[in-house]
Amino acid sequence: MPQSPGSPTRSPRVEGLLARMTLEEKQAQLVGYWIDQGVEVVAPMSGEKKSSTRYEDASANGIGHLTRVYGTRPVDPVERAAWLWAEQRRLQQQTRLGIPALVHEECLTGLAAWKAATFPTPLAWGASFDPALVEEVGAAVGSSMRALGIHQGLAPVLDVIRDPRWGRVDECIAEDPLVVGTVGTAYVRGLQSEGVHATLKHFVGYSASRAGRNHAPVSAGQREIEDVLLPPFEMAVREGGARSVMNSYSDIDGLPLAADPRYLTGILRERWGFDGVVVSDYFSVDFLHSMQRVAADSADAARLAITAGIDVELPSPDAFETLAAQVRDGRLAPEVLDQAVRRVLGQKESLGLLDADFSTPPTAIDLDPAEHRALARRLAEESVVLLSNDGALPLDTATASRIAVIGPNADSAEALMGCYSFVNHVLATHPGTPAGIELPTVVDALRAEFPRAEFTTTAGCDVEGTDRSALPVAVEAAAQADVAIVVVGDRAGLFGRGTVGEGNDVEDLELPGIQRELVEAVVATGTPVILITMTGRPYVLDWALPPRAGAAGTTTGLGVVDAAGAATPSPAALPAAVLQTFFPGEEGAPALAGLLSGRVAPSGRLPVSLPRSAGAQPYSYLHPVLGGRTDVTSADPTPTRPFGFGLSYTTFTHDDLTVPATVAAGEAFRAIVRVRNTGRVEATDVVQLYANDEVASVTRPVAQLVDFRRVTLAPGAEAVVEFDVPIDRLAFTGLDGVKRVEAGTIRLWVGGACDDEETVARLEIV
Amino acid sequence: MPQSPGSPTRSPRVEGLLARMTLEEKQAQLVGYWIDQGVEVVAPMSGEKKSSTRYEDASANGIGHLTRVYGTRPVDPVERAAWLWAEQRRLQQQTRLGIPALVHEECLTGLAAWKAATFPTPLAWGASFDPALVEEVGAAVGSSMRALGIHQGLAPVLDVIRDPRWGRVDECIAEDPLVVGTVGTAYVRGLQSEGVHATLKHFVGYSASRAGRNHAPVSAGQREIEDVLLPPFEMAVREGGARSVMNSYSDIDGLPLAADPRYLTGILRERWGFDGVVVSDYFSVDFLHSMQRVAADSADAARLAITAGIDVELPSPDAFETLAAQVRDGRLAPEVLDQAVRRVLGQKESLGLLDADFSTPPTAIDLDPAEHRALARRLAEESVVLLSNDGALPLDTATASRIAVIGPNADSAEALMGCYSFVNHVLATHPGTPAGIELPTVVDALRAEFPRAEFTTTAGCDVEGTDRSALPVAVEAAAQADVAIVVVGDRAGLFGRGTVGEGNDVEDLELPGIQRELVEAVVATGTPVILITMTGRPYVLDWALPPRAGAAGTTTGLGVVDAAGAATPSPAALPAAVLQTFFPGEEGAPALAGLLSGRVAPSGRLPVSLPRSAGAQPYSYLHPVLGGRTDVTSADPTPTRPFGFGLSYTTFTHDDLTVPATVAAGEAFRAIVRVRNTGRVEATDVVQLYANDEVASVTRPVAQLVDFRRVTLAPGAEAVVEFDVPIDRLAFTGLDGVKRVEAGTIRLWVGGACDDEETVARLEIV
Repeated sequence: MPQSPGSPTRSPRVEGLLARMTLEEKQAQLVGYWIDQGVEVVAPMSGEKKSSTRYEDASANGIGHLTRVYGTRPVDPVERAAWLWAEQRRLQQQTRLGIPALVHEECLTGLAAWKAATFPTPLAWGASFDPALVEEVGAAVGSSMRALGIHQGLAPVLDVIRDPRWGRVDECIAEDPLVVGTVGTAYVRGLQSEGVHATLKHFVGYSASRAGRNHAPVSAGQREIEDVLLPPFEMAVREGGARSVMNSYSDIDGLPLAADPRYLTGILRERWGFDGVVVSDYFSVDFLHSMQRVAADSADAARLAITAGIDVELPSPDAFETLAAQVRDGRLAPEVLDQAVRRVLGQKESLGLLDADFSTPPTAIDLDPAEHRALARRLAEESVVLLSNDGALPLDTATASRIAVIGPNADSAEALMGCYSFVNHVLATHPGTPAGIELPTVVDALRAEFPRAEFTTTAGCDVEGTDRSALPVAVEAAAQADVAIVVVGDRAGLFGRGTVGEGNDVEDLELPGIQRELVEAVVATGTPVILITMTGRPYVLDWALPPRAGAAGTTTGLGVVDAAGAATPSPAALPAAVLQTFFPGEEGAPALAGLLSGRVAPSGRLPVSLPRSAGAQPYSYLHPVLGGRTDVTSADPTPTRPFGFGLSYTTFTHDDLTVPATVAAGEAFRAIVRVRNTGRVEATDVVQLYANDEVASVTRPVAQLVDFRRVTLAPGAEAVVEFDVPIDRLAFTGLDGVKRVEAGTIRLWVGGACDDEETVARLEIV
Repeated sequence: MPQSPGSPTRSPRVEGLLARMTLEEKQAQLVGYWIDQGVEVVAPMSGEKKSSTRYEDASANGIGHLTRVYGTRPVDPVERAAWLWAEQRRLQQQTRLGIPALVHEECLTGLAAWKAATFPTPLAWGASFDPALVEEVGAAVGSSMRALGIHQGLAPVLDVIRDPRWGRVDECIAEDPLVVGTVGTAYVRGLQSEGVHATLKHFVGYSASRAGRNHAPVSAGQREIEDVLLPPFEMAVREGGARSVMNSYSDIDGLPLAADPRYLTGILRERWGFDGVVVSDYFSVDFLHSMQRVAADSADAARLAITAGIDVELPSPDAFETLAAQVRDGRLAPEVLDQAVRRVLGQKESLGLLDADFSTPPTAIDLDPAEHRALARRLAEESVVLLSNDGALPLDTATASRIAVIGPNADSAEALMGCYSFVNHVLATHPGTPAGIELPTVVDALRAEFPRAEFTTTAGCDVEGTDRSALPVAVEAAAQADVAIVVVGDRAGLFGRGTVGEGNDVEDLELPGIQRELVEAVVATGTPVILITMTGRPYVLDWALPPRAGAAGTTTGLGVVDAAGAATPSPAALPAAVLQTFFPGEEGAPALAGLLSGRVAPSGRLPVSLPRSAGAQPYSYLHPVLGGRTDVTSADPTPTRPFGFGLSYTTFTHDDLTVPATVAAGEAFRAIVRVRNTGRVEATDVVQLYANDEVASVTRPVAQLVDFRRVTLAPGAEAVVEFDVPIDRLAFTGLDGVKRVEAGTIRLWVGGACDDEETVARLEIV
């Protein structure tokens, strides 16, 4: 029996089922059904189209997926599990073939279900540069999902950030493919270690949509796709063994991914050997007709999608409900249908679903146990990036006993969480429903951290809007305090609800609303200000930050690194310290409190460039010489703080970078560097090894991260860090379209950010 | 003797020369020399590198090109001609082969030489939608060049506008490939009708550089390049017979155009049959080494470039000076060198240069004769776009006898001209040198147009900077007047001098400096304001324009066209009328005066979308559904006024669009529409025929201009306009990479702008 490329080894069990199935039974296995679908959740996405099929009809012949059984509205997990177990028994007993449904759920910041632990958002995972910890988080999430009978999680997002205007940046890990790939693959491993299948999304190019507008077309050449956008997916498939992939909504150069066999079949299955299941992003099959207009109707859309390599239509049978009829009338080859069904049944078999016993639903379950909260705490602690500090941090409560806590995010639980958290994704449309988990706010956590301090708290303004009426109260509170902690930023939400998140794209990268005004007014009181930005994307913060210390004279590519411009405000008008957090999750506030008190030293690093302006976008640190500041353009995209930047309560030096003189293609090289804690507190450094291919057949980035390591050092201690770097990390797509390493000189360096060549070495690829 | 593809038919004369030439003589033919090169002109472009060769050495074996003999500093044309004729005689007599130099010069807005006529900038050509007139301009420019012994002009720019942040937008014609191709090809025909070779630039992709930053990398797929960026070049080569092409500085997807044989040879010569000469953009060969780092040194750069298809290095022998040595030591095949030399000598032969008589230089020449000024006037008149008018225009001098003329561009000659005009390109660094041509300012022209009116004039502020000290004077002047004419906008210049032009890219699309403040302050006086924007790019003007009249209810793609937002100011706070001009040239001010008085009715149409914000860029009207406003993104790129928009002093209606039911691929169809002047003055309409391919194999734009025609109608008159449209205009690159027309339904419409479906018809491609 010949194998199709990228299909699982044929199982006799599956083949036996397939041989017995009617066309309608096959079709049923290739669609999801969204029992709880309500207009308030999905309105802008579903457009005119509502599922035309009632569940009873859709499941009469079985059903492929049950869509977001726990994650669509607040349902008690135990009650819902009882319903689910019963429904699975019904499918086993009352459909002809007795095949249970595969249950999928969102799990981007933890399981998106009521009462489940909410972890930091993926952009915070990136800031931690800690794949091992993210793997533990993945396993924790997986264990909760497994306990609830969920088989597949719609995470991680492996889109490499290309434009901070895009609203879904908070769902992404970083603007560097190695960080995205490494951290994302760790999450896959963790999730799948608990028997829950991960879904890599969005394959591929979604993050590069025009001007950061959601679903907008992608202008990109094959080399950029191969060398920047695809590597995280390849790593998660080949090294992480990811079991499912979801397509991107967007089109690249005119061809929607949902209809593109070059990616869904050619690259994914034939090149990488992926043998799992490709699921469609919600509604994206029908969008081939209604939005992208490459299909004349839903049937056309279904045929294009399944032929390209989409196996399962989610969330509902909008287009795939035509598949059986299309095979029957000869418009679709039966082998195409069979291939998708074979994959779905293979997945169900591998999950044990074909023999599952649904007699005993769970009777008690804790989705937010102490171990999960401890993980959430650690990841939050590691993900906060200290952008500036004039010595005000850690707080000395001897001199700062009166603390004003100001800002719309200071006493907000929602502010701690990303767009795909259950609270912001679902509960926002169920006002009055409690979160179901402990969500201490920054105010709560500061009171606990500084029990002897005297607090005043006031919002000063909202996250959005232009209401200035409360500014004077905030100014007065600050004026009366020894220190003001101002917590500003985003509110994550969906499609016009909130300031970041799915559909909330922007044309301006200033902090939303009048929050900058609030900060400036509070700073103007002269009371030292600790500014905490709690955001889902990087914002323009040059007005809040001093000129970058210690960076003058370091060079990368063309220009001298120098963040100071003519308009730099005098230090007197600046916050004393600035901490950047990316939605830090349920334990984010205690983590921040610990960082402020000095109980924990900051160790996060920017996973994304801190932009200078929206009008300078798109920008990526992975630019060739002419993509950065040059003498031939008056526009300067140099970020306010670069990728990899982050301070701590100590300082680190890096020296004696040593690499071999030569390395052969296909091999690895060892880079050795000494890192020393030159300050007075124990802290963790993220040692970052960057490279530049000095001359190549195509333009190459002025800097590219090739390895990184978290290293914890006591004051005065030093360590020698060894990186074993596969030289393939420097491979790129050559003139012939083939990805390989070219002979030539590679400059390598270690420093405090991508542009900081603190210690430099060169090796020759031979 | 076999022909290389894309090489001219071999000439015995050229072959004879080639056979006699030394390697050094061959090399000499492939380079230019910039006699007058001075650091002030080219500093940011040449970088560290200065020409290493003195002219005496460079020309000892002859010389290919003389670079900008007239256009580098103010030289009297007759004196310079005498020098040039003498130099050509010297080359004939004192070099072994006696081959004269080819003389090239810039001619983007007219010949860029002292005392030569300065026409409107190309963006104004686009606004005129009048290829026939542009052809006349091209012939006029060509006649001046020929008289001065110039053989090749470095124009037109055929880059399709993709991002208004780019500083060179004023050198481009439009954001629509058909307008760029048609108008640009007309210019080629005109120029070449006088025996001067046109140079198509910049081949290809320059305008799509990242975030509009000059020389930044281009992210684009092959389909976008083929279907949007290449068509104007193809038209100018195939239909215009253009004799020279210049490469783009930028790289597409990592490969710099100067090193890319797929474009310079594969598409240009092998596919299109181009048999002329490819010249390098200035310094771009060496940039392969110094900027793009795809070459290890200048020799590498030279070899890559000539192998890819660059025949001549301009402006100077920075890299090609290594060619002879490289052939000698075996690094470069002699055939590659010979092929380029053959092309250059073929061009010289076809120009008559090999037999030219340089005994009699011109003794008197008028580079700005009345016929040229008349053409400049007509083109300026046709290119002004009336954006709004509450009835204040044309001015009634019976009620408006006291006129305040305000704004930094009101009494500025420089403001009338683009970046490549001699005044702004060269004289800006020669302070005190007179322009050498009559350049009436708006103030001058208004005084002439309204001889009985009483004028006060004041700048109010500068184009750049934040000096507000003169605002009160302007406000007072307006308050005392019956009407205020406020002229604001850009100052074109190079590399940091000015607000638009080469190297002057922006991250913000507000009017430069405090000009918006000036306008708002003057409007606040209550005196009716006629706002004239004189710019090189479209700026954000929503604050100055009323909600778009009559557009509500028309639809294109997803959304209802509705330019009114919540923040729309009340009409009372708006200018009474807004006129958009794109650097209208030496006769621009009298043209404007005639439009204000009503002597001429406005007929220009926007050749580029009027943007909503810099943060919404890039944007093009040629977007598929998901590239525009949709329900899945909060970012709204809808322009304030769309491509094709423009009012007049009358109104036009379009109805009864009729097309055949079907048309076969490869054929043309006739579209007939009735246009009627429904107002009270004679005026010219630009009748615009748009199309949308409703379902296609790839995403297609929601609107695409397929034909246009200027039609002048008396009040109440009507005309039936017939368009004969080759259906190939609707061809696009299919899934297999081949450009063709697909069967299916095409929706066509005519209306007042790209999104205005005033009269609609459908045809079926069979």
